[in-house]
Amino acid sequence: MDAAREAHAREAFRQAVVNTLERRLFYIPSFKIYRGVAGLYDYGPPGCAVKSNVLAFWRQHFVLEENMLEVDCPCVTPEVVLKASGHVDKFTDLMVKDEKTGTCYRADHLIKDFCKEKLERDPNITAEKAAEFRHVMAVLDDLSAEELGAKIKEYGITAPDTKNPLSPPYPFNLMFQTSIGPSGLTPGYMRPETAQGIFVNFKDLYYYNGNKLPFAAAQIGQAFRNEISPRQGLLRVREFTLAEIEHFVDPEDKSHPKFSEVSNLEFLMFPREDQVSGQSARRIRIGEAVTEGIVNNETLGYFIGRVYLFLTHLGIDRERLRFRQHLANEMAHYAADCWDAEIECSYGWIECVGIADRSAYDLHAHTDKSGVPLVAAEKFAEPIEVEKLVITPVKKELGLAFKGNQKMVVEALEAMGEKEAMEMKATLESKGEVEFQVCTLGKDVTITKSMVSILKEKKKEHQRVFTPSVIEPSFGIGRIIYCLYEHSFYTRASRGGDEQLNVFGFPPLVAPIKCTVFPLVQNQQYEEVARRIARSLTAAGITYKIDITGTSIGKRYARTDELGVPLAITVDSTTSVTLRDRDSKQQIRINVDEVASVVKEVTDGLSTWADMQWKYPAHSSTSAED
Amino acid sequence: MDAAREAHAREAFRQAVVNTLERRLFYIPSFKIYRGVAGLYDYGPPGCAVKSNVLAFWRQHFVLEENMLEVDCPCVTPEVVLKASGHVDKFTDLMVKDEKTGTCYRADHLIKDFCKEKLERDPNITAEKAAEFRHVMAVLDDLSAEELGAKIKEYGITAPDTKNPLSPPYPFNLMFQTSIGPSGLTPGYMRPETAQGIFVNFKDLYYYNGNKLPFAAAQIGQAFRNEISPRQGLLRVREFTLAEIEHFVDPEDKSHPKFSEVSNLEFLMFPREDQVSGQSARRIRIGEAVTEGIVNNETLGYFIGRVYLFLTHLGIDRERLRFRQHLANEMAHYAADCWDAEIECSYGWIECVGIADRSAYDLHAHTDKSGVPLVAAEKFAEPIEVEKLVITPVKKELGLAFKGNQKMVVEALEAMGEKEAMEMKATLESKGEVEFQVCTLGKDVTITKSMVSILKEKKKEHQRVFTPSVIEPSFGIGRIIYCLYEHSFYTRASRGGDEQLNVFGFPPLVAPIKCTVFPLVQNQQYEEVARRIARSLTAAGITYKIDITGTSIGKRYARTDELGVPLAITVDSTTSVTLRDRDSKQQIRINVDEVASVVKEVTDGLSTWADMQWKYPAHSSTSAED
Repeated sequence: MDAAREAHAREAFRQAVVNTLERRLFYIPSFKIYRGVAGLYDYGPPGCAVKSNVLAFWRQHFVLEENMLEVDCPCVTPEVVLKASGHVDKFTDLMVKDEKTGTCYRADHLIKDFCKEKLERDPNITAEKAAEFRHVMAVLDDLSAEELGAKIKEYGITAPDTKNPLSPPYPFNLMFQTSIGPSGLTPGYMRPETAQGIFVNFKDLYYYNGNKLPFAAAQIGQAFRNEISPRQGLLRVREFTLAEIEHFVDPEDKSHPKFSEVSNLEFLMFPREDQVSGQSARRIRIGEAVTEGIVNNETLGYFIGRVYLFLTHLGIDRERLRFRQHLANEMAHYAADCWDAEIECSYGWIECVGIADRSAYDLHAHTDKSGVPLVAAEKFAEPIEVEKLVITPVKKELGLAFKGNQKMVVEALEAMGEKEAMEMKATLESKGEVEFQVCTLGKDVTITKSMVSILKEKKKEHQRVFTPSVIEPSFGIGRIIYCLYEHSFYTRASRGGDEQLNVFGFPPLVAPIKCTVFPLVQNQQYEEVARRIARSLTAAGITYKIDITGTSIGKRYARTDELGVPLAITVDSTTSVTLRDRDSKQQIRINVDEVASVVKEVTDGLSTWADMQWKYPAHSSTSAED
Repeated sequence: MDAAREAHAREAFRQAVVNTLERRLFYIPSFKIYRGVAGLYDYGPPGCAVKSNVLAFWRQHFVLEENMLEVDCPCVTPEVVLKASGHVDKFTDLMVKDEKTGTCYRADHLIKDFCKEKLERDPNITAEKAAEFRHVMAVLDDLSAEELGAKIKEYGITAPDTKNPLSPPYPFNLMFQTSIGPSGLTPGYMRPETAQGIFVNFKDLYYYNGNKLPFAAAQIGQAFRNEISPRQGLLRVREFTLAEIEHFVDPEDKSHPKFSEVSNLEFLMFPREDQVSGQSARRIRIGEAVTEGIVNNETLGYFIGRVYLFLTHLGIDRERLRFRQHLANEMAHYAADCWDAEIECSYGWIECVGIADRSAYDLHAHTDKSGVPLVAAEKFAEPIEVEKLVITPVKKELGLAFKGNQKMVVEALEAMGEKEAMEMKATLESKGEVEFQVCTLGKDVTITKSMVSILKEKKKEHQRVFTPSVIEPSFGIGRIIYCLYEHSFYTRASRGGDEQLNVFGFPPLVAPIKCTVFPLVQNQQYEEVARRIARSLTAAGITYKIDITGTSIGKRYARTDELGVPLAITVDSTTSVTLRDRDSKQQIRINVDEVASVVKEVTDGLSTWADMQWKYPAHSSTSAED
């Protein structure tokens, strides 16, 4: 019952947030006048401003701070690239169809819904059955099409809207497909992630970086997933903005020179072992996590720390943020380690940033497919002497002995491994000949001493050539923003106590509009002062909203609190004005000519509201907020 | 011959620019390791930085300065929206196919190439023929598929690569098509422009603006055109960034409150009449152009002025920038006026910004298709009394007289226009009856006085409801950036005079990296100072490049001049450093602790290099640039 009440409260809270967001145009269902399209949303003016603030801070915090190479690649991508990356073959969800209407559903969603419904609403469920449903929900991601189909049959699940029977599950590729050029012969897709654009450019970027590792490339851009049936509002959409970093390192040295700058940060982590043994997330110092091997390496740990700083600076509540390690079954076979920054909101814990050590997988895949080696080289300070096996078949002798089969014998000799070759060498030296199996001939042949020379030569090598590892922090910007909305939202009673007012308590960094300008009453003098202040705000690069309507000042505050505007300037004289702080509702008095620079200092984060309260006289008004 | 030499010089200049751009990764042909895709390019690190600087300035100059409502809509767009806008039916180019290989070409391109070739290379061409070719090239855009086909036949044009015969021209839709959701039943397209996302949101945006006109909405985003055969390198691409403004105004009042701020600007304009009469572009004051009716209205004129300021601030040469008015045959039938900002580069005059008064066309189209009225209302200060025609058929009488035909008669009566109704009223009053044609019955009927009442009533109206006009400045960001590259590029002899060095003379606003940090020689002390300066630059939000290699300082300058870096810090002592200006190559000495703030002042545009030369001692070095 408590769980039900809690679920109800979560739902009510979400509705309050979403209603405010939609009413104030933070977002708009796209193409609304045409009844919209599931999974497509517009950012309206305040939402668009929040997004561009988040992206600007991302650039500052990651690209500029780390001197990353930012690139900007097209969304339209030819098939060959996504064939190499594995998306054409594997980027699928399992789908079932209503056999009569053709409506499509995600197979795992239907089973999950069924189990959840049973667990929550069926009072007669046995403990055994309950355990089974919980188990099914836990392993859902691992089930094959056949297994999902069997479960659907076993549980008698039908189409939710019509109760019609369902088709067996089959894979549906989640990429939007298109065709490049007029011929219809060049299939293409809208990219499902921005990362591939970076991988295919590795060679040029490495060169641009002076052929030195490590370095990181970054990209912000649209990505597309043709979801089968988008749910969870703004969290699962068909087009979204990703910000991705690909940090290339020597697989033999994943240390990070700036790791000490984050190593003392302590936050909620949820290692694989703790999840498996049924424990909860716990506070761990990231330095410790790396030392103890919980996190695979320093570079991965460094990015986990930087992501923590990024999210908390934006206003994400540190108590509702955790870093969860992927379980073995979640992780791609090639990944060395993977952590998700998960943020808790009314939908539960949501994956918002993935931070993965993808090893050399992606560069290998594109090297194989394109034939262009995507490798790095470590130049040795001094050449290093190495022993190399050299097998030299003597073609003349072999030709005489084997005639038409010569080529096969030569190839088989050259293909010998070190151990086999050294054994042959020893036998030849002691006995003069050796029996040698040539698979391509399907028989053994006799090799004599004169037919092949086997040597170990000392060679000088000047460099080590290798495929770099990739450490990839990948940010779902829309998801971060939605969680930020929930974490920033609160309500408070109006002055009269008769209604609940909504507030978005955004930090100035994120706030869509930094301040408002209100003449207290409608008169020409105040309006002129307001316009003068507005011009000085524009010159200082501060976004503002001016409201010269006769609406009561309290109503005007309430309206802009709902937009998360941190500061309000009220023009109540021609020489000085009142500056109000959104969250504390406290007010100070400042000269007209000074106010823009004060607002700039606070919104740029150079001073706090408390600093300003120290510097400027308080203003008390009994009538302001009625 | 002179024309040929000039064309050759243009080509050589372009090659020099493009080689530098590609070598320094300003751009990269997308998916290069897979041999690329025509018309798709990546922005590499410096190009990406230039782009984000241009967009940041666009936001500052337009969105912030004018308090525009910025929105962000998806690229994936359902068919119904683009059906309403006309793109599904009309966004096509005429294409011909090589009848044997299937290779596609733009029909107009082939004819243009043929005429150009004849004019440039055929010495035996008659004056008459030459005039014909010139005429064909001028009217190419107006020719129908049949007319283009006839020309191809007449001139015997074949496929350029194979000389095979060509198919007749047929329309090819330039939108990338896709399918939304798994059913395959919802066709969609990648948007060909960002504007439609704004139009369909008009109602919400108008409400957000307090139901007041005028206001502008803006959007920056990707747009897509599946070009038949992209040419002209970075100028004609299949995916590009648009920045569009839709300024909504009352069609009866297109004045602009800030017009006086631009009215004195004078620049090259090319009005329709001057083009038709064979004159050249000339300097006109924009205030005059509006007063004299050359430009249709103040708001259009205001935006032309603002676009001029935007482009010249970025570094576009004002002598190679003109505003050309569309000729009657270029302009859509609904447009009230249209001007293109054209920038001259090695490809000729290139349309980079379109500034059009699109009247009420777009809002009308979406109102019609969606059934949602996209209108504005002007509330009158006092209600206005208007006379309204009221026709009231007396159904009982009509039923008795016409039985089953009653409905048709009623509808015909109600559909009468004012004149017809007032004539009927007069006849009924004088004669008691009138003959009345009912088209749906195919005959006349007799209407008597008792069957209908016709009145003119006085009514009070409180508002005027109308569809706003749209003034649309639309910026092709990639084209502007390419022209900027050409306008910024120059070469100068190296110190030794033995080679030509490339320089991009970007203004600091645009420069991809604002400054470099070079220790003069490799030693630990200088390197530490360099790193300290680097940290202070990061803190000040200034992008920099640090180069601690032992390369000669002259080479390091040359490398970064090629990237357009405006300022270089050379660490040649532990207390003070040398600051060098890229274009003049002059140098001043500044304290280590002061240098970041000096760089910031210059690159933020608060001070000029000349200001700094006044303030700090000059540094002369004979060895620096060798």
